[in-house]
Amino acid sequence: MSLTLFNSLSELEPEEVEELLKLSQRLEECAEPQALAGKVLALLFLSPSLRTMSSFQAAMLRLGGGSFVVSPNLSIHPIETNANVVMDSIAAEHIREALPVVASYGDAIGIRVFAPRISLEEDLKDIYFQEIAKLSPVPIINMESAIQHPCQSLADWKTMEDLSIPRKRGKFVLSWANHPKALPLAVAASTVQMAAMRGMEVTVLRPEGFELPEPILKVARELAVRSGGSVRETHDRSEALEGAHVLYAKSWSSTKYYGNEEGDHDLRSGLSDWCVNTDWFATADTNCRFMHCLPVRRGVVVTEEVLEGPRSVVVHEARNRMFAQMAVLYEILRENNT
Amino acid sequence: MSLTLFNSLSELEPEEVEELLKLSQRLEECAEPQALAGKVLALLFLSPSLRTMSSFQAAMLRLGGGSFVVSPNLSIHPIETNANVVMDSIAAEHIREALPVVASYGDAIGIRVFAPRISLEEDLKDIYFQEIAKLSPVPIINMESAIQHPCQSLADWKTMEDLSIPRKRGKFVLSWANHPKALPLAVAASTVQMAAMRGMEVTVLRPEGFELPEPILKVARELAVRSGGSVRETHDRSEALEGAHVLYAKSWSSTKYYGNEEGDHDLRSGLSDWCVNTDWFATADTNCRFMHCLPVRRGVVVTEEVLEGPRSVVVHEARNRMFAQMAVLYEILRENNT
Amino acid sequence: MSLTLFNSLSELEPEEVEELLKLSQRLEECAEPQALAGKVLALLFLSPSLRTMSSFQAAMLRLGGGSFVVSPNLSIHPIETNANVVMDSIAAEHIREALPVVASYGDAIGIRVFAPRISLEEDLKDIYFQEIAKLSPVPIINMESAIQHPCQSLADWKTMEDLSIPRKRGKFVLSWANHPKALPLAVAASTVQMAAMRGMEVTVLRPEGFELPEPILKVARELAVRSGGSVRETHDRSEALEGAHVLYAKSWSSTKYYGNEEGDHDLRSGLSDWCVNTDWFATADTNCRFMHCLPVRRGVVVTEEVLEGPRSVVVHEARNRMFAQMAVLYEILRENNT
Repeated sequence: MSLTLFNSLSELEPEEVEELLKLSQRLEECAEPQALAGKVLALLFLSPSLRTMSSFQAAMLRLGGGSFVVSPNLSIHPIETNANVVMDSIAAEHIREALPVVASYGDAIGIRVFAPRISLEEDLKDIYFQEIAKLSPVPIINMESAIQHPCQSLADWKTMEDLSIPRKRGKFVLSWANHPKALPLAVAASTVQMAAMRGMEVTVLRPEGFELPEPILKVARELAVRSGGSVRETHDRSEALEGAHVLYAKSWSSTKYYGNEEGDHDLRSGLSDWCVNTDWFATADTNCRFMHCLPVRRGVVVTEEVLEGPRSVVVHEARNRMFAQMAVLYEILRENNT
Repeated sequence: MSLTLFNSLSELEPEEVEELLKLSQRLEECAEPQALAGKVLALLFLSPSLRTMSSFQAAMLRLGGGSFVVSPNLSIHPIETNANVVMDSIAAEHIREALPVVASYGDAIGIRVFAPRISLEEDLKDIYFQEIAKLSPVPIINMESAIQHPCQSLADWKTMEDLSIPRKRGKFVLSWANHPKALPLAVAASTVQMAAMRGMEVTVLRPEGFELPEPILKVARELAVRSGGSVRETHDRSEALEGAHVLYAKSWSSTKYYGNEEGDHDLRSGLSDWCVNTDWFATADTNCRFMHCLPVRRGVVVTEEVLEGPRSVVVHEARNRMFAQMAVLYEILRENNT
Repeated sequence: MSLTLFNSLSELEPEEVEELLKLSQRLEECAEPQALAGKVLALLFLSPSLRTMSSFQAAMLRLGGGSFVVSPNLSIHPIETNANVVMDSIAAEHIREALPVVASYGDAIGIRVFAPRISLEEDLKDIYFQEIAKLSPVPIINMESAIQHPCQSLADWKTMEDLSIPRKRGKFVLSWANHPKALPLAVAASTVQMAAMRGMEVTVLRPEGFELPEPILKVARELAVRSGGSVRETHDRSEALEGAHVLYAKSWSSTKYYGNEEGDHDLRSGLSDWCVNTDWFATADTNCRFMHCLPVRRGVVVTEEVLEGPRSVVVHEARNRMFAQMAVLYEILRENNT
């Protein structure tokens, strides 16, 4: 595999995903503390992070390399990202210099930049990330953009493998959940496509006004066709969860009121019962697992009882971020790894 | 030695402390730049730090491993620590997920969390640190909690060894010092117990209202019984310092007005003469040393003359933090180190 | 070469600079991922940074060592730098403890501290950096002080070597450029001396009131005498740029109104045409390059057309920061490197 951009599982061949999964498993079991000796990963956070920042640093260290973090919360001048601006205000540097410079200190760069959430159309094209990624002279890892979170999806896939959750005829429910804020679509979009690519029977459960955008579902359906899975949307909770092997909860923005905070807020104000509790699992498979990418708000997205109960695998998922990323970094940075 | 929690010297056998001291001395003299290759230390700072953050990073690097820092001043959402909370406000994540996740990226975790200083009883039980520590799947290093600062104490002990300060019949004075703020008890508590465990004649010198809590002194006295040392409290400065080999200055909260900032403030307002100056050493041993854990306020805790004078070993102590921590990390993380 | 203070190219012998250039070239071409195994670089930022912080971290990692960052924007109490202060306010620690402690965790320390820009005389003597540097028990790298930026100059020199820009009879124009703020003199001072030391015909182009201080030019002229180069100042743009091989743009404080923000502001308010555009290159050498140390403000210091055009080598310069610093670190930290 020759990986110069890790942006979406859907852009990889199924065999390439399998290879990454096997590699992440191998690196979890057998340390290779010299594999990336002298290699450097640049980590650029234009949006905040805890798990991603920590797990990428740890991943590089375990392979004998290292990383450095550039983040607006650290000691940096504001960075301009708009084109054609006379920079006579607070921004002292443009991303068109900052990105290639930061990237050039690394052998690869991880970039995190959340959706501006002004125009759904632009966010679906992932314009902002794509513009930034173009500037890099080295391989790029998407650490979450407007519409992608491939590291999360690879970790989630690995978690399902670890737990022997079935692929064919495995029932995967991605459910919208309540949240005080309008959140990006990235995890929802990546997750539905990942589960479809894994050959599962995928149901997107959400209240009206929170339909996933058609271009996201279209990719998921195409992946399902290749893998023998399926994808559907519904607002009927009990039907959706019948026989489910996984309930993956995640909040996201209303697509109806995308970029309209007030409209979104009003729409979700009546949806506080979209907090996952034990009742949701009444008709699910006995071993149905609760998944979430974290961070998660207790008593809002999910009850403490479920989150700390035996169905919950959220810490397992988070830990797999590290192993998934070790595999991606290994593929990108290991010399003579063809 | 099989170390999975480094929380207090008083919880170790005397032989184990000796072993750590010897190991720290060996690692100071002979570099082992591959000892912890591929090993990762997670560093979680729920309270601020300069020395601890720097010295732990340096310690891991010198042993060929690495670390990553999670700190509220870095790029993270606020973390909830209270139980049974509906998280619909600013905190986006609960410590009950954040801690196990961050810890799971490391082979060990260092945790710093200062005393809330609301209830003396709770702080003496170190409830907050203990609750957090329970959540970790990997070995834990206390990087200062409400009532413990074992890395400081190990470094201080090593400093006294380096300087050949006598154990038996060595006179150790821990003196309260002036400070504009009510500070935690952790260093005072750890220090008095460390000096007692080292077999010294320990005197706690403090104004009225600043007595060390009985449970802290009780442990110190028990350690003294085993080591052949002694522990007493006094407010009589000249008597306390007679023949002293060490004057260890440190400010701490009034125990009388614990958690009551106003009461504490009024009590200390008349105590500006508790600033260590050269006169304090009038009847001390000729070679009496001045110790302090840093950071220290000049002209408030101690005069510049003493701090920069020949008695002062504060930088030596701070440097020994690194070597002490290297020994602790080596014991915890080195494979086949039994 | 025995390097214990890397403060200014002008303090090195020409042969030592050549050696550093060769070494940086070698380390760019051939990785040495174990050269500095177990070595630690302390990085103290009393002034902010992006390139310097990133490139030093990357430089250490590529040589198998590591670094840690101390910065006021990270999790630290304020640090007092004034002498003879009673520290009863917000500063909890004095630089006279903080510096030796932080330095003692490293095998070398990098220090960044910008000019206070109150007194030109004091800044020209680099008093603040010199005072701090005295406190270090380990070798020191100047990461930009009031009047020096040797890492930038070494990187710029390497860039000119990479591009085969002539030394003898090479025409180097350092031009003042517009900027909303009064900036330090460090890059301008280091650059004019570096180009003079390289044997080039150096012209300082600047509006009236922005003459470089005589002590800076004096050193540059002395260097030019040894190298066979020359140094002159002018405000005549077309004359200055005739046949130029390099146009190095940089803004700096008015020397006439040094430390007087209002006077400086008024003086520069009429100078918005000091924004480098393509016209500036009309009579320059066909291959004349545009250089700048970054960060740079588009539409203020330089037009986008020039900055992104074929003459611009700003990213190349920034990347060379890493290789230049690798050479400096190698010379300082490599054992038995004599």
